Amino acid sequence: MSTIRTRVAIIGAGPAGLFLSHLLHRAGIESVVVDARSRDAVENTIRAGILEHGTVDALVESGASTRVLTEGLRHDGIELRVDGEGHRIDFADLVGRSVFLYPQHEVLRDLIATRLAEGQDLRFEVTALRIEEPDSATPRVVVHDTTGVEQVIEADFVVGADGSHSVARAALSGARSGYFREYPFAWFGILCEAPPSAPELIYSTSPGGFALISQRSASVQRMYFQCDPAVDPASLSEERIWAELRSRVPGADLIEGPIFQRDVLRFRSFVAHDLRRGRVALVGDAAHTVPPTGAKGMNLAIADVLILERALRALLLENDPRLIDDYAETVLRRIWKAQHFSWWMTSMLHVAPDATEFDRLRRLGELRSVVESRAGRTYLAEAYTGWPLTD
Amino acid sequence: MSTIRTRVAIIGAGPAGLFLSHLLHRAGIESVVVDARSRDAVENTIRAGILEHGTVDALVESGASTRVLTEGLRHDGIELRVDGEGHRIDFADLVGRSVFLYPQHEVLRDLIATRLAEGQDLRFEVTALRIEEPDSATPRVVVHDTTGVEQVIEADFVVGADGSHSVARAALSGARSGYFREYPFAWFGILCEAPPSAPELIYSTSPGGFALISQRSASVQRMYFQCDPAVDPASLSEERIWAELRSRVPGADLIEGPIFQRDVLRFRSFVAHDLRRGRVALVGDAAHTVPPTGAKGMNLAIADVLILERALRALLLENDPRLIDDYAETVLRRIWKAQHFSWWMTSMLHVAPDATEFDRLRRLGELRSVVESRAGRTYLAEAYTGWPLTD
Repeated sequence: MSTIRTRVAIIGAGPAGLFLSHLLHRAGIESVVVDARSRDAVENTIRAGILEHGTVDALVESGASTRVLTEGLRHDGIELRVDGEGHRIDFADLVGRSVFLYPQHEVLRDLIATRLAEGQDLRFEVTALRIEEPDSATPRVVVHDTTGVEQVIEADFVVGADGSHSVARAALSGARSGYFREYPFAWFGILCEAPPSAPELIYSTSPGGFALISQRSASVQRMYFQCDPAVDPASLSEERIWAELRSRVPGADLIEGPIFQRDVLRFRSFVAHDLRRGRVALVGDAAHTVPPTGAKGMNLAIADVLILERALRALLLENDPRLIDDYAETVLRRIWKAQHFSWWMTSMLHVAPDATEFDRLRRLGELRSVVESRAGRTYLAEAYTGWPLTD
Repeated sequence: MSTIRTRVAIIGAGPAGLFLSHLLHRAGIESVVVDARSRDAVENTIRAGILEHGTVDALVESGASTRVLTEGLRHDGIELRVDGEGHRIDFADLVGRSVFLYPQHEVLRDLIATRLAEGQDLRFEVTALRIEEPDSATPRVVVHDTTGVEQVIEADFVVGADGSHSVARAALSGARSGYFREYPFAWFGILCEAPPSAPELIYSTSPGGFALISQRSASVQRMYFQCDPAVDPASLSEERIWAELRSRVPGADLIEGPIFQRDVLRFRSFVAHDLRRGRVALVGDAAHTVPPTGAKGMNLAIADVLILERALRALLLENDPRLIDDYAETVLRRIWKAQHFSWWMTSMLHVAPDATEFDRLRRLGELRSVVESRAGRTYLAEAYTGWPLTD
């Protein structure tokens, strides 16, 4: 069993792992990144992508992506649509900030190209099996490649950036150990070939349930509607899918087109019990999952990384453990606010199957309270565009 | 069976019924008010009393109470206390408005004195039995006095202002017909002889549950702590009550004193299905109940009355039914916002017995989102001090 030696071993080549390796490289700290998936799978799985103002700044200022500014689409607001009546949440006016529509796979392509150009040791199709001796000064990651040969990566620090099915989590309080909430509904998502139906995202609630009209590009659109988590994505005809979408966004003109991908997204809220143990830390989806309604997933991962990278610089370059000792407490402040926001947007916009008429009318009273109040709209816009990244 | 003839028959001498009779009198419309309770019981039951800015204006401008300005205490904010850390919601700074601490029984004394001085036909210890012919031009209220003698009040319009156990409701969609939510906790309330522990209300949440430190006067204080709805108020020693209160408001110095009243307040949210039928309408607690956390009860009653009085003037003086036809829709807009606000304050501050750790930490993330954001504090302050009374 051969041993690879590095300063930081990073499990997972998603946005969190790759962005961390990028920042560490700039600080003169070398790292190895491993991911069980192929490069092609990482780069070509079409994913969501609303980037907060601060996420865009972090990507651009660090040199990780400049394409976000040229290829991404700036959105200055969203529409909250309530029973057919649209209410714009004007981010630019309310908080002087915007978000960017720039799908996650584009971020990943930028990061992979940058990392490889700078000589990053980046290994696809290498699966992490376990972390050993997390409390020692030289924690290790045991991995194997597609041929099944085991190797050991010995490092000064190990980072679990390996998503919601994290292997790294097992080295902390346990793989499934965390604060958890499941929702009694899911999203039926489609990708279709059509021009955009709207210039900005439409979050629509109606008696039949929620729908989100989103965009991917000039010719590909992403749309979702609330469904039962048990629905088989293949079971609905295209006609039926469009009928569902139209009924959830009354009064809007949806431009239809061939549907070339469909999936059912489960809704979960999760925060791992422990985000750091000794010389192992978790970032991104390995540390927390949010339902997609608040568009917080990737943004929260980038926020974790900015805090962890600072802590690793202090620890590894100056032998100062104070920031890493505070890591969990620091990131949890933002994580629980984002968990609340994601829960809030989800609860306010979806029709829960067990909701009473009181619940439904209370929820409509809440939506009216928010959209009728500049303070209410501002409170929502602050969270959606992202709280400041300083702590 | 004798018949009394009036223009508006009002069932209930609470704030809503008395304030309505006052406004109608000023418009030249005579009314009869009946209440099953004695005048002494109405005037001497000590009740809560946070008056919104607009409620105070309405009482003062109509001449119903001027004492509110001299005897009431202006509160420019509240404290939200989270696990021992206080956060002031500065109403004056955030929204340029305040609330007044002026207990409901003081409002009632003012209103009763004013009504009687102006010759109001105001009958205590007269119980409404039922409303007859609500859809006719001359609806009737059948009442009896303490001797059991039945009388009929024949009117052009009947108003049910008879509280949460409304008899009037039966003439609309049915006495128990409405949108309803019950909460799995209650408030243990005390009145004690002591100086105020704080100049403003303290809404405190802690791992053990919620507490509200409120005031009544310089020498009488009102305090509450979250309890099981099944608790017998007599079952707790004074020592135990103070220990519960201290543990729910960590870090605050509560000034103790003899406890001379104790009660358990159930938490319910309710909105009647129908707020008007023909020539009968509901106002105040007969139309809706809110949990006390948002201090909305009496304020919502006064808001209903302002809208109903305008509609009755149009109907009875100008034979114009348009405002009364819109009455339910108009008042429901405010009612559902207030229902949401009361539910929100309740949910955000109480520890539900079935809450998970995820729920608890999400809730703390929410509280931090609100207190750390000027927009969040403003959104709360707007609702607490009261939305504008125009529609």
